[in-house]
Amino acid sequence: MNKRMIVYITGILMIIEAILMLPSAVISLMESDGLIMGFAKAIGLTAGAGALCAYLSRPKNTTIYAREGLVTVSVGWIVLSLMGALPFWFTRQIPRYVDAFFETASGFTTTGASILTNVEALSRSVLFWRSFTHWIGGMGVLVFIMAVVPLAAGGGNIHLMKAESPGFEASKLVPRTGSTAKILYLIYLGMTVTLVILLRAGGMDLFSALCLSFGTAGTGGFGVLNDSIGSYSNYCKIVITVFMTLFGVNFSFYYLLLKGRVRDALRNEEVRWYLIIYTAFSLIITFSIIGRYSSFGGALLDSFFQVSSVMTTTGYSTANFDLWPELSKSLMVLAMCIGACAGSTGGGFKVSRVIVLFKYACVTVQDALFPNRVHRVKLNGRNIDDPLLRSIGGYFALYVLILLLSVVVISADGYDFTTNVTAVVATLNNIGPGLNAVGAAGNYSGYGAFSKLVLCFDMIAGRLELLPMMVLFSRRIWK
Amino acid sequence: MNKRMIVYITGILMIIEAILMLPSAVISLMESDGLIMGFAKAIGLTAGAGALCAYLSRPKNTTIYAREGLVTVSVGWIVLSLMGALPFWFTRQIPRYVDAFFETASGFTTTGASILTNVEALSRSVLFWRSFTHWIGGMGVLVFIMAVVPLAAGGGNIHLMKAESPGFEASKLVPRTGSTAKILYLIYLGMTVTLVILLRAGGMDLFSALCLSFGTAGTGGFGVLNDSIGSYSNYCKIVITVFMTLFGVNFSFYYLLLKGRVRDALRNEEVRWYLIIYTAFSLIITFSIIGRYSSFGGALLDSFFQVSSVMTTTGYSTANFDLWPELSKSLMVLAMCIGACAGSTGGGFKVSRVIVLFKYACVTVQDALFPNRVHRVKLNGRNIDDPLLRSIGGYFALYVLILLLSVVVISADGYDFTTNVTAVVATLNNIGPGLNAVGAAGNYSGYGAFSKLVLCFDMIAGRLELLPMMVLFSRRIWK
Repeated sequence: MNKRMIVYITGILMIIEAILMLPSAVISLMESDGLIMGFAKAIGLTAGAGALCAYLSRPKNTTIYAREGLVTVSVGWIVLSLMGALPFWFTRQIPRYVDAFFETASGFTTTGASILTNVEALSRSVLFWRSFTHWIGGMGVLVFIMAVVPLAAGGGNIHLMKAESPGFEASKLVPRTGSTAKILYLIYLGMTVTLVILLRAGGMDLFSALCLSFGTAGTGGFGVLNDSIGSYSNYCKIVITVFMTLFGVNFSFYYLLLKGRVRDALRNEEVRWYLIIYTAFSLIITFSIIGRYSSFGGALLDSFFQVSSVMTTTGYSTANFDLWPELSKSLMVLAMCIGACAGSTGGGFKVSRVIVLFKYACVTVQDALFPNRVHRVKLNGRNIDDPLLRSIGGYFALYVLILLLSVVVISADGYDFTTNVTAVVATLNNIGPGLNAVGAAGNYSGYGAFSKLVLCFDMIAGRLELLPMMVLFSRRIWK
Repeated sequence: MNKRMIVYITGILMIIEAILMLPSAVISLMESDGLIMGFAKAIGLTAGAGALCAYLSRPKNTTIYAREGLVTVSVGWIVLSLMGALPFWFTRQIPRYVDAFFETASGFTTTGASILTNVEALSRSVLFWRSFTHWIGGMGVLVFIMAVVPLAAGGGNIHLMKAESPGFEASKLVPRTGSTAKILYLIYLGMTVTLVILLRAGGMDLFSALCLSFGTAGTGGFGVLNDSIGSYSNYCKIVITVFMTLFGVNFSFYYLLLKGRVRDALRNEEVRWYLIIYTAFSLIITFSIIGRYSSFGGALLDSFFQVSSVMTTTGYSTANFDLWPELSKSLMVLAMCIGACAGSTGGGFKVSRVIVLFKYACVTVQDALFPNRVHRVKLNGRNIDDPLLRSIGGYFALYVLILLLSVVVISADGYDFTTNVTAVVATLNNIGPGLNAVGAAGNYSGYGAFSKLVLCFDMIAGRLELLPMMVLFSRRIWK
């Protein structure tokens, strides 16, 4: 284990985070909200600690392997959340540190689960930081750094990128990792800017347009109003629906489009199923809720908005779907579990993994029927080889294991079964709202400190696709 | 596909079923409950249809392969439930056929889920049939036939046995299938008789002792009183707790004990973990519910009874655990999913599969850390080879797929999320009671006919370990 390198990269990460806190501090100055000292302390502490780490453990050997990649990413993200909580805490806008940590982890992991009961009471500078964490976390911080400077020697960067980027087909679009990171960030930036412009065109003020765009781009879900997106115009709701759906698509799809390889892009099985599931669920829910709406259009808009919101794991809401009929609610929970495309900013189990597991199940039936024939799982026309299939099966086992254990542990706080199950589903998949007490109209403030930490673990584990966080439990790492 | 053989065996199955209905008819005569005509019609129709099938498609070629084994077992069990419903329906004790079918499928699959609101209103002859289905289904009907006559030529019987016996390590104890079947049934009979004697010794009347022993041995859960086991003496509760736990153990464990190979028996990893999980869950629940009891002993008894009841998937109850604290409830749901040992009469996912999946998850983490080393999953000190691991992964995918789809479909009936999830968990794992509307104090009568059929499918699929029912959806079967 190259421990110096892990500490060094974490140090760099903190310095970058301190720089990323600056815009919020500037807003605090502009608004004269009296919180500038809080920001100053947070920035100073983060930058100082980062500089110390980076200076003290400047590595001679910058070679890293898969294991260092995994540990760096998990440690990096935990530290990121620990330091990112400081602006909330030092400004006293969130008085308890564990709550501030929860809110920050929720922000960086683009979950959007909140412990706040009244968002509108927060100062704009702090609200900006809260939404900005979504934008930073959506594409990944290490990927961001790699776009600017190379971190590790030789092929080491790919281990960092693999560990931080969502989706099992690590998004190495072009041979050089740095170039891939740059391309990803440029697409991400371009789409975000477009969204801001479209929201401004709909009459939204710049501050809200920025915050909501951060939340949409990162598929996060933090808003600036207590009713999330409910009180904006239909135009804005439609724009956000479209962009949530777009940010849930595999970014390599856009890369292919930019390169003019339209046919290659359209051949992507995952994107096709993503859109089919999305449309099917939305239409079923539209007909299931139509009795509660005065117009078909209203039901259609709310249903497409909400399904997009949970499937891309954004978590914005225009309606309290907790009050919808049970069929709609169970479809929503199913959509939460499925999640977005691999290689997008969205979370969840990922559509491609669901496709593979579905085919895996079919192949198991065929295996039982004809034990002497060889049956293979295919994706995009190519065979999934046995090691990959094995790793997806293992990922699924891990996922269910973490889910069940988390439900049991947080159930000690006494919330009902539906609340506990959906709280874990909503955090592990980085969605935000669940049902009942943690539903679209509720929040996570009622859970105890220990349960909050468990849910924070689930958020970070979910964002990093389980493995980086799980390796911390491996004895071999600590030797 | 050897279709003649499938129809032939199903015919034999019906004839045997008609014979197994006779004891209930005798009770009806003895009690003069006026239901004898109903039984006569049911027996006549079942025997007649069976004889017709067996006569018309007497096969020349009795060779069968894995696929015929699977289809025979699934078709056989569906027909068994269809005909087994007749005594309930013809006697008008359950007026709607779909309800009678649900009750029978629940009986044969040893689920114990009921649509009856008042069990005590049923005549004793019908109650006896209801409980007897548990005993028949517990060990399997085809296994029973094989113990008496060989069905298929050569090695074909093993395919039938494999498809009907629970657990992935098909219980071929001795080389000849018929002998294995005989040994299994003798152990089963011996344990059941012992239980009847012990219950009689505790002052229970013969009828109740027989019915409850059938329910315990098959890990079914149908009782003869409305409050299940609640009103019996503590002695009876303790005896039933011990025997539920015993019937949840892999029967090859008893075979080894009988052979004097105690050390081999004790080396079984599954049995060890089964007892560890059982004890740990029971103790945690004891401390979680103790505040609601006047004595420690009372809490201890109820908690050990209930955990044994759901983990072995029996489903008897001495307490309404729906009213317990949330931590206990979520542990109960977890115990429901884990289930009993492979090769026992119990259902669920099976402890050995849980062990393998847990190790599979750990190995996946190790694979990520050290991609160039080979990591293996071991059970009982032996490596699980890749095809078996692959099939367990596929089984898990199928299991979750059926579970999620069933929840979505039955949610159309408007019950709450907790009821729907636990209804599916309780039927798919052959337990019986779930939470809320289908809790220990509730029943399944409120679901619509379509949902009841879905739950029947889940019960039969769960009892036959998914694959036999799933092959019916394979196009290749129907060619």
